[in-house]
Amino acid sequence: MRDVAIIGIGMTDFGEMWNDSLRDLFVKASLEAMDDAGVDHIDGLVAGCMSPGLFAGQEHIGSLMADYLGQAPIPGVRVESACASGGMALRTGIAYVASGMHNVVLCGGVEKMTDVSGAQATYALATAADQDYEAFHGVTFPGLYAMMATAHMHKYGTKREDLAQVAVKNHDNGLLNPHAQYRMKITVEQVINSVKVADPLNILDCSPITDGAAAVIICPLEMAKKMKKKPVVKISASTHATDTIALHQRDDITWLKSTAEAAAKAYKMAGVKPEQIDFAEVHDCFTIAEICVLEAMGIVKKGEGGKATREGLTARDGKFPVNPSGGLKSKGHPVGATGIAQIHEIVTQLRGEAGRRQLKRARRALAQNMGGSGGSAVVHILEVL
Amino acid sequence: MRDVAIIGIGMTDFGEMWNDSLRDLFVKASLEAMDDAGVDHIDGLVAGCMSPGLFAGQEHIGSLMADYLGQAPIPGVRVESACASGGMALRTGIAYVASGMHNVVLCGGVEKMTDVSGAQATYALATAADQDYEAFHGVTFPGLYAMMATAHMHKYGTKREDLAQVAVKNHDNGLLNPHAQYRMKITVEQVINSVKVADPLNILDCSPITDGAAAVIICPLEMAKKMKKKPVVKISASTHATDTIALHQRDDITWLKSTAEAAAKAYKMAGVKPEQIDFAEVHDCFTIAEICVLEAMGIVKKGEGGKATREGLTARDGKFPVNPSGGLKSKGHPVGATGIAQIHEIVTQLRGEAGRRQLKRARRALAQNMGGSGGSAVVHILEVL
Repeated sequence: MRDVAIIGIGMTDFGEMWNDSLRDLFVKASLEAMDDAGVDHIDGLVAGCMSPGLFAGQEHIGSLMADYLGQAPIPGVRVESACASGGMALRTGIAYVASGMHNVVLCGGVEKMTDVSGAQATYALATAADQDYEAFHGVTFPGLYAMMATAHMHKYGTKREDLAQVAVKNHDNGLLNPHAQYRMKITVEQVINSVKVADPLNILDCSPITDGAAAVIICPLEMAKKMKKKPVVKISASTHATDTIALHQRDDITWLKSTAEAAAKAYKMAGVKPEQIDFAEVHDCFTIAEICVLEAMGIVKKGEGGKATREGLTARDGKFPVNPSGGLKSKGHPVGATGIAQIHEIVTQLRGEAGRRQLKRARRALAQNMGGSGGSAVVHILEVL
Repeated sequence: MRDVAIIGIGMTDFGEMWNDSLRDLFVKASLEAMDDAGVDHIDGLVAGCMSPGLFAGQEHIGSLMADYLGQAPIPGVRVESACASGGMALRTGIAYVASGMHNVVLCGGVEKMTDVSGAQATYALATAADQDYEAFHGVTFPGLYAMMATAHMHKYGTKREDLAQVAVKNHDNGLLNPHAQYRMKITVEQVINSVKVADPLNILDCSPITDGAAAVIICPLEMAKKMKKKPVVKISASTHATDTIALHQRDDITWLKSTAEAAAKAYKMAGVKPEQIDFAEVHDCFTIAEICVLEAMGIVKKGEGGKATREGLTARDGKFPVNPSGGLKSKGHPVGATGIAQIHEIVTQLRGEAGRRQLKRARRALAQNMGGSGGSAVVHILEVL
């Protein structure tokens, strides 16, 4: 099994991109990544996209993107794991490179979500939940995460303010990210007084509906070392785990089993302990999600995610910065693109190219990308050589 | 890169499966494959499915199936390449095994198409075409393949009867397949007089709308040899290629470039010539497709696919049997399952378990699975050791 490295990154601005179609977004991010890597040909392409059928009436994304990128007849495939589709695209690309089937592979993610109505978008997103037992009965994602939040508050004494602090902290970071959808400072009071979505979650606890794409170029580590254009970023671990996609089937709805499983495997694969990770990009689709993720990844003990956030552990100048990019909350959440955008931020930080939001310690970092309410989780650990 | 073998196969009946949901179908085929392989645990799962969002309101298929198969938290992902999603699931699983990331992987395909109206199904299928330049203007798949047929007839003198003969031959085969959706003999006259869909294609030139699933279990070849439960089927080649998904962008709409590219690479990878292949399962979504595929795979010369069919080359007792299973035409075409069902038939034949439809020579065979009007093509070559 060959070691794999990242040699190029690219992403579009995230937001309501009225002038760019699904294919435009993917191609823009991909061309930037190819330019950054200094390659004009790729051997294969993996596109992460959650529901282009429901959002844009277009499946067959792998071939479409290979063609519009001027790279057909290269193999081009789409992978889907709901909101973890981006992370899965990278993991699948790694399998292609590690196996020796391909050398230079583009792993991209894209979603064009604003061309449909809000109701249609909510329906499309709810297809990541269990259609027969959740969506059919009218539960959508804010409702599912609201139940997780309520249980967490009840079980561990997590405060409403702790949830709000996740959003406040991520907006503080996103303010410094030129690609972010919502570059504005918010306060705990604003979050708590914003319009109710599903109690206890308000609109400022929720990540937005977003258009956007991101792409990375990977190749065998040995090949990357020879290219030496920019600092080489090695992929030390790539793991994936699943859980029931329906909440009612879980022993404990505050515990993200798939994330716990994927993270534990990733630490083992990379040969590191959680305390050896400098920072992380995690899946804060709702404020409660980031709190549960911190616990499942073993960064804090069970039940202490809210307290840790309140005490500043995860702030940009804290001991373990989380979501320096602004996270899904501020940067935006084009679902299929999110997992790759996380990698984009990590590589930017590891190379020391993050400008005003550059972290002091940035040698090794973790990306956690999640599908649905935790039905799937993909974890990557990256380090700069 | 490790060699990979197939150690288990399973499939549901194909047809209108009113009593089985999307997940029921997948799990049924998967349990049969696991039983056939003699394994009660798998390390990973790849599900090929074209558009569960549009057909069943359900994405996040990889996790859902891993869970309902009782295998969570194993990694479970969905891949999509339109009607080539099944073939892509196998190819992706091969990458996972070949790389060493996993040992025993289940590659399945599924589609539940009959729970929506005919119009909705036609819309869902059209998302495999170019939404902006084809589907948006009202062209659906029968129309696209009708244009290919018209061009082929004009350019090469292919006769209406030649197209019909593909359907007649595949129904002759499907009659002997207990899993097939339409087990009935038809005649050239019946095809030519059946109701018009898109001139020159009639209803009996088209594959049907179908529910169904199929699954195979793969593992490293060396591991398979040690298990020795049944004849070991080695995967000698696995290739994938893309083309423009829109017909108007092609130099020649009678030439399936992605199939030609994938087949040429597959012959090279397996170290064989086309004449060393005993038989094939190919993507006859419309009668003209099988004719074009024969040419692109180099089985016959350009333009001679119709003539070869008329002369019996591809019949069950011909020199190069094609679609002994009944093909998409008679067996049915649950789009995401088709690529895996082709593999199911080939393994059944290679093991000598095909009963009344058993071919005389069955040592090495090829599967060709295609997305859209040829925007993607996946080719596998299998041989029994």
